[in-house]
Amino acid sequence: MKPEITIVVLNDFADWEAAFLTTALRGGLYPGDEGRFEGRYMTPDGRAVESLGGMRVQADCDASALPDGCAGVVLVGGLSWQSPEAELIVPIVGEARRRNIPVGGICNATLFLAAHGFLDSVRHTGNTVEAMRQWGGDRYRGEALYEERQAVCDGGVVTANGSAHLEFTREYLRLLLPAQHEQIEGWYMFYKNGFYKR
Amino acid sequence: MKPEITIVVLNDFADWEAAFLTTALRGGLYPGDEGRFEGRYMTPDGRAVESLGGMRVQADCDASALPDGCAGVVLVGGLSWQSPEAELIVPIVGEARRRNIPVGGICNATLFLAAHGFLDSVRHTGNTVEAMRQWGGDRYRGEALYEERQAVCDGGVVTANGSAHLEFTREYLRLLLPAQHEQIEGWYMFYKNGFYKR
Repeated sequence: MKPEITIVVLNDFADWEAAFLTTALRGGLYPGDEGRFEGRYMTPDGRAVESLGGMRVQADCDASALPDGCAGVVLVGGLSWQSPEAELIVPIVGEARRRNIPVGGICNATLFLAAHGFLDSVRHTGNTVEAMRQWGGDRYRGEALYEERQAVCDGGVVTANGSAHLEFTREYLRLLLPAQHEQIEGWYMFYKNGFYKR
Repeated sequence: MKPEITIVVLNDFADWEAAFLTTALRGGLYPGDEGRFEGRYMTPDGRAVESLGGMRVQADCDASALPDGCAGVVLVGGLSWQSPEAELIVPIVGEARRRNIPVGGICNATLFLAAHGFLDSVRHTGNTVEAMRQWGGDRYRGEALYEERQAVCDGGVVTANGSAHLEFTREYLRLLLPAQHEQIEGWYMFYKNGFYKR
């Protein structure tokens, strides 16, 4: 069995933000490459959620526990990261951090991570430091570690803003596949620049 | 009620290819903008499909008929466009063309369109002209109209290769929202260049 990456999606999650990562994990980095991971979709209560694009997505598991053998956790951005159900994801992230499992958060999920203290000791980025202050208040103490970059990876945590789907994917893949540096860069350049030059 | 765009997804559809389009249609082009369309997900038999990223997506309708009031049809690329169930989509595209409803196809869906004669009289692009010849054989007669571009819009048909998710979205939005040219370009530049410059 392939190692599983847990993809956390809430209602009104952003369709594009983890789409490149999940497909690269499952399908590989270039034609003929083999995917090295499986994706498992987690929702807070195990029920289906609807994306911002109107896609109704079924859950593979609820947030009662981090699955055994989980090799990574990815929090997909969207409009529900300040909702009560998002609170159910806090122990999942805590458990992943304790087990040294890579955690990724993009867009509003970075604000969620900030507001729960998960970015206080790692360099990070996200949807502006001002928004992190607003969401987190006194609970966010990582301000000095905020960097104005598309994506940042530090201490097993990958963060990115909502326009950084490709850079987020690149950083997370580097964490999981450190020997594939060249292939990851090739993958990134293909999607960043496009197949045709105009 | 908002006009509906029919998004056609088959098993092993590519998660990223329509993700930007569907979210822009439903959510608008900038913060505070109002989405002008609704998305309806069509699968050949009305059953759920699984994406390349492992996401199980429920269907809103099957392919027995193009929904009344449909304002656009989008065929999402993936690995099943040569399968028997893909044949069920041929009448849907034919009906859309007869009703002058914009049709979009990306990645392998362009090969499907080529192989069923839908690109014989419009300028188009896609996953290489060689692949169109291979998939279409004698049934593809649009070779002289193939352009080596990220995305092409002509005669109500938008085509793009699989790395051209942003250009595909831009061309399709221009068709649906001709008065929003400037906003569409701003949307495009944001996602193409990213929020931070490094």
